[in-house]
Amino acid sequence: MSIMMSELSWDEYQRRIRDDAIVLLPVGAVEQHGHHLPLGTDWMMATYMARRAAENVNGIVAAPISYGYRSQVRTGGGAHQCGTTNLDGGTLINLVKDVVKELARHGARKIAVIDGHFENRFYLDEACFLAIRELQWAGIEDARILKMIYAEKISDETMEKVYAGGDYPGLDLEHGGILETAMMLYCYPDLVHLDRVKDEPLPEFPPYDMFPGNPDWVPTSGALSSGKLATAEKGKLLVEEFVATVTESLRREFRNPA
Amino acid sequence: MSIMMSELSWDEYQRRIRDDAIVLLPVGAVEQHGHHLPLGTDWMMATYMARRAAENVNGIVAAPISYGYRSQVRTGGGAHQCGTTNLDGGTLINLVKDVVKELARHGARKIAVIDGHFENRFYLDEACFLAIRELQWAGIEDARILKMIYAEKISDETMEKVYAGGDYPGLDLEHGGILETAMMLYCYPDLVHLDRVKDEPLPEFPPYDMFPGNPDWVPTSGALSSGKLATAEKGKLLVEEFVATVTESLRREFRNPA
Amino acid sequence: MSIMMSELSWDEYQRRIRDDAIVLLPVGAVEQHGHHLPLGTDWMMATYMARRAAENVNGIVAAPISYGYRSQVRTGGGAHQCGTTNLDGGTLINLVKDVVKELARHGARKIAVIDGHFENRFYLDEACFLAIRELQWAGIEDARILKMIYAEKISDETMEKVYAGGDYPGLDLEHGGILETAMMLYCYPDLVHLDRVKDEPLPEFPPYDMFPGNPDWVPTSGALSSGKLATAEKGKLLVEEFVATVTESLRREFRNPA
Amino acid sequence: MSIMMSELSWDEYQRRIRDDAIVLLPVGAVEQHGHHLPLGTDWMMATYMARRAAENVNGIVAAPISYGYRSQVRTGGGAHQCGTTNLDGGTLINLVKDVVKELARHGARKIAVIDGHFENRFYLDEACFLAIRELQWAGIEDARILKMIYAEKISDETMEKVYAGGDYPGLDLEHGGILETAMMLYCYPDLVHLDRVKDEPLPEFPPYDMFPGNPDWVPTSGALSSGKLATAEKGKLLVEEFVATVTESLRREFRNPA
Amino acid sequence: MSIMMSELSWDEYQRRIRDDAIVLLPVGAVEQHGHHLPLGTDWMMATYMARRAAENVNGIVAAPISYGYRSQVRTGGGAHQCGTTNLDGGTLINLVKDVVKELARHGARKIAVIDGHFENRFYLDEACFLAIRELQWAGIEDARILKMIYAEKISDETMEKVYAGGDYPGLDLEHGGILETAMMLYCYPDLVHLDRVKDEPLPEFPPYDMFPGNPDWVPTSGALSSGKLATAEKGKLLVEEFVATVTESLRREFRNPA
Amino acid sequence: MSIMMSELSWDEYQRRIRDDAIVLLPVGAVEQHGHHLPLGTDWMMATYMARRAAENVNGIVAAPISYGYRSQVRTGGGAHQCGTTNLDGGTLINLVKDVVKELARHGARKIAVIDGHFENRFYLDEACFLAIRELQWAGIEDARILKMIYAEKISDETMEKVYAGGDYPGLDLEHGGILETAMMLYCYPDLVHLDRVKDEPLPEFPPYDMFPGNPDWVPTSGALSSGKLATAEKGKLLVEEFVATVTESLRREFRNPA
Repeated sequence: MSIMMSELSWDEYQRRIRDDAIVLLPVGAVEQHGHHLPLGTDWMMATYMARRAAENVNGIVAAPISYGYRSQVRTGGGAHQCGTTNLDGGTLINLVKDVVKELARHGARKIAVIDGHFENRFYLDEACFLAIRELQWAGIEDARILKMIYAEKISDETMEKVYAGGDYPGLDLEHGGILETAMMLYCYPDLVHLDRVKDEPLPEFPPYDMFPGNPDWVPTSGALSSGKLATAEKGKLLVEEFVATVTESLRREFRNPA
Repeated sequence: MSIMMSELSWDEYQRRIRDDAIVLLPVGAVEQHGHHLPLGTDWMMATYMARRAAENVNGIVAAPISYGYRSQVRTGGGAHQCGTTNLDGGTLINLVKDVVKELARHGARKIAVIDGHFENRFYLDEACFLAIRELQWAGIEDARILKMIYAEKISDETMEKVYAGGDYPGLDLEHGGILETAMMLYCYPDLVHLDRVKDEPLPEFPPYDMFPGNPDWVPTSGALSSGKLATAEKGKLLVEEFVATVTESLRREFRNPA
Repeated sequence: MSIMMSELSWDEYQRRIRDDAIVLLPVGAVEQHGHHLPLGTDWMMATYMARRAAENVNGIVAAPISYGYRSQVRTGGGAHQCGTTNLDGGTLINLVKDVVKELARHGARKIAVIDGHFENRFYLDEACFLAIRELQWAGIEDARILKMIYAEKISDETMEKVYAGGDYPGLDLEHGGILETAMMLYCYPDLVHLDRVKDEPLPEFPPYDMFPGNPDWVPTSGALSSGKLATAEKGKLLVEEFVATVTESLRREFRNPA
Repeated sequence: MSIMMSELSWDEYQRRIRDDAIVLLPVGAVEQHGHHLPLGTDWMMATYMARRAAENVNGIVAAPISYGYRSQVRTGGGAHQCGTTNLDGGTLINLVKDVVKELARHGARKIAVIDGHFENRFYLDEACFLAIRELQWAGIEDARILKMIYAEKISDETMEKVYAGGDYPGLDLEHGGILETAMMLYCYPDLVHLDRVKDEPLPEFPPYDMFPGNPDWVPTSGALSSGKLATAEKGKLLVEEFVATVTESLRREFRNPA
Repeated sequence: MSIMMSELSWDEYQRRIRDDAIVLLPVGAVEQHGHHLPLGTDWMMATYMARRAAENVNGIVAAPISYGYRSQVRTGGGAHQCGTTNLDGGTLINLVKDVVKELARHGARKIAVIDGHFENRFYLDEACFLAIRELQWAGIEDARILKMIYAEKISDETMEKVYAGGDYPGLDLEHGGILETAMMLYCYPDLVHLDRVKDEPLPEFPPYDMFPGNPDWVPTSGALSSGKLATAEKGKLLVEEFVATVTESLRREFRNPA
Repeated sequence: MSIMMSELSWDEYQRRIRDDAIVLLPVGAVEQHGHHLPLGTDWMMATYMARRAAENVNGIVAAPISYGYRSQVRTGGGAHQCGTTNLDGGTLINLVKDVVKELARHGARKIAVIDGHFENRFYLDEACFLAIRELQWAGIEDARILKMIYAEKISDETMEKVYAGGDYPGLDLEHGGILETAMMLYCYPDLVHLDRVKDEPLPEFPPYDMFPGNPDWVPTSGALSSGKLATAEKGKLLVEEFVATVTESLRREFRNPA
């Protein structure tokens, strides 16, 4: 039987829910990732991670939420590059809240929101909080939501291998850089064009943001650091580690017997 | 080059937009469709239609909006079957509004919202209206949005062939019936389980709705009529006609020289 | 004692509510209806129907909600004719939700929303749904709302008589046409000016909507079909049938002993 | 030609608007007014005033907004008497804002909001402010809105006559008292039941409000002072003075040549 | 131990709440008050009153809400003088609602909202009402909120002394006049510049408001009446009387044994 | 003349604005900070920083926004300790948006939002973005907003001195730890109770969040690391460096001649 909720009939899905399956909701973004990565990088990777982890825990993957919160200049290049498609904060909050509440109404009590876009962070917190609040108003007291950005932590070992032969620009500048490029090479090689990686100096961001954003702060490619040294092997390292972390997190919260 | 916006890099997308490409946004639903069709039927079919039409007009398909407005008892069976995942009306309005406004901010002036879920209808109207209103506030006066449910009209000829040997239940009862089943057989045969079609009498809906909805009004399968007589051939007839209608609509509004 | 809530004192109203009276809330629109019908046609007819049905079931008619959801080009001519006064979707949802919740707070458990404007449909669904949801949050579990457009169905017999000697344009083009004109001639003859009916060809709408709307799609009069053949006699047929349908619906849901 | 917008066809209305007619929007409430006055007192009186003033200035009266902001204990008795039907503040703001913006979109540049319910006051201010703000965003810079509660001021002479032979309870306690009773006797005598006026001591409100409200603060009848000494003659004095004040206000702002 | 919530550690605060301390939330405005009073007059005075009353009842003062609802022309001079910083009505409602709900979540059951800005009035009513409503949805049934403008009533004796030797302009024109000036002289003498009081005729407001507001209605100083005759002694009279009234109100509602 | 907007009269403020003064808006939180720091730590420090920087650039400090976004378990201990007073995300967005828009309406073109609470980050981004968007709708195109958390970066030199003799727990665990304690000792020594610092092991947070939050994850004191080694001298180092960073940021964006 499919692991994707959209591919199940309602009675198949119901059986899975009654068996207490974890439901994973991937949330990403449509956002520029330089000349070499596709606009859908974030939601595709979040969905990939959710699917892989779901396979490990016999979970179900809900239809991904492709659009995410407003890309910020210092973390994602901001909005000036064509294609970055930002939701207002309130829109994302309500969207995720509605879906999560519906999953709980279906009977799901173990819900996981898998985030693939840094800027979504606090908006997903709010969505989860509000979902729980309204579920409690409705008398549903036992639903629990685990929310994580799949790349929350990386082992030192992996870091060393991934950045071998190059400098680590810092996680803040990893947008469109080695990490994302390597993972996409591993998961969606056809969508990566390594030859288009542009060699630009690292941006030097000041310790503040400006509104309206200043496009001059961002490299012309949109990538905040270079993905040149990315390989599918490095991608495999990263992806498998992240899959393991997500899986372990789900198991820890949702599978331990009390 | 891919026709899917999510698979393009931002500069590829930008070139397409500068060439005045039509951008199509599929909107669907995650909703029960009986025991034999998957929960994602509506958003998958809307995306399919958008993709096929985009191929015809050299357009771009934006990441689909999978979740839609609240299923209603008399048109989609309502919310009581497990898996139907309803957005609040305000959430859907803002979601579509935000995405459409961003497409226009990218430079798209020919935008098409392709609907695959009946209940979305007026909410998409509102989303498009509000998007135009706010774009005008922002000084963007020339964006135009075409919005259609892909199955808005069917030729008599096709109808005759599709319902040959059976009774036409009326479009209102077509939820999970011959039309959708046939189209899915043609487009996503692996996701259809004809053997699970349940033979239930047609529901006799009164001329009103009740809140809370009454599950007794709806056949236990969730399908409002039987998909038994569906075939991939009938699906082809329907799908190709719909693709032609969507394509022709786009051409008529967006490709005629003034 | 008056049947109109606005004409009752609070203690009279309370007695009626304690006797389990059905409360009917008419919702309409202020919208162009051609040169021969008044802007208030929809809310006046909805109120008329509510009043007539209330008389039959010893109900109470709440103050009508005169303004409705945005007129759409293909169903009501859209917004370009002067006088059409559109509420945003969110405004109508909250307005009806608030009123319905207050009726339930008063003690009403049998509430009927009587719609006289096609475009209100899904917004009233949302209002009723949200009212029920918030009432449940507040511990009121047994309120029930019946919602219907009063003209939901017409018998073949009536249709034949009404369209005798003319062509049936289809319900979609009935805006300002024979049906509404006949009903208004029967109910509010002083407000109808048959001599002003303009003879224009039927509009040929494409299977989609455009935003912004295209005024050229709509006949200059604003009526989507001709009301010329309307008579008060035809109006009586229609109105009495609709009154019977609304009455019967109320009785079926609210008066049958379990 | 009718003075009521709802009774005009769109082209008649348009002609009036092009002649720069003032459009008056009555806003009231559905609220308990003691045992002797009907629940619709506020919106009926606001509509009456709007109509009378419109006759004087050749204006147009838009469909009244019947429901108003939440009745407060110390000014209207609060919400505990059955029948008081309160809108949330945000709902009223958006409702009036939407209607006023539509009137301006029709071409009206002289708009008057005539208030008949004390608690509406600041919400109507906000609605008017937001309408002007959004109209300016839309490029409509010259719309002007006059907003007044029709009973804003009373001449000493009238006060003396109205309260002759009794004590003046203060305007704050006039809810359901002599003023409103007298006006209703003059305007809608059939809806007043003087014999049901209950003789209760004046409430002694503390200088604060409590939430939840305390029903014990309010006389059991709901009227905050006695309407016993009301007469149609007193009502005439008041009403004609208010009509004159509203008329004069409209003339002063909208009819003086610059 | 400090009386200001912001100066307490969470465990100190918790002990106070467990002892059933009243929590007072001051709400004010940042608004012009003529040339002689500071922009923060309203929130500073509200905070002063809350602090003094809290000392009397062993209460706690929450961090003040400095910004308030939109200043209106006839009560505060409106928005055209530089520095008046208006919140939208919806913003203030949600802000106060959120804070009050959090205080109740902490365990506070005796909450007082102390208002220092006339225009906040109905918005604070709504905030308190909605807080109670949502608390009840969350199962908190026993929280009670007292809301008052600290200057709700003044004794005749004090009025006589305060206006001795001058004319009473009416409370409506007291914005920036003797009352506020005197109180500020007593409480914050360093922030008052009596020499800058401008001698302007009293404004003669019509019985209505205009949107957009007309700056010509307002004296150029922004004060609606003259503060010239203000003294710290008069301020003391007023302030001490108000402190007593607030204190007594709190005691009456929150300290009487049942 | 005072540097605090609340202490200026409107005409004084206006003169400063016309001289192109930078206006700084501090935003903080009311949030538990262990047993030894006061609930107001975040808004007090943000206000302190804004005031010090304003002195350096001849700016103006607007009334602080004391309440902030929802404390999260892994960054601030979450909501379970008494006293943490969380705004909903939407409330904070609108509050900051409204104030910033008003500052721009006053004529301010150089606006700085100084954040003292980590969780506010993306909500302030949204507030600033929406403010700019609506200002542009209103025709104000040249307002610019600098937004920063005052502690965005710390020099290695300072870090070494501050953590000399102890372990650096990582910035994520600095809530109520050495940094904040030291700064408060320097700025508000009377409000710090070093003796109450509790010696608890560092929390080991998993790489995800749970909703509802799990209080067991957080040390019982609420502080995420120990403030024991904090001294006023370390505080001075930190504070003066932050003041310098904020000042320099303002100068860089707002004072450089083009």
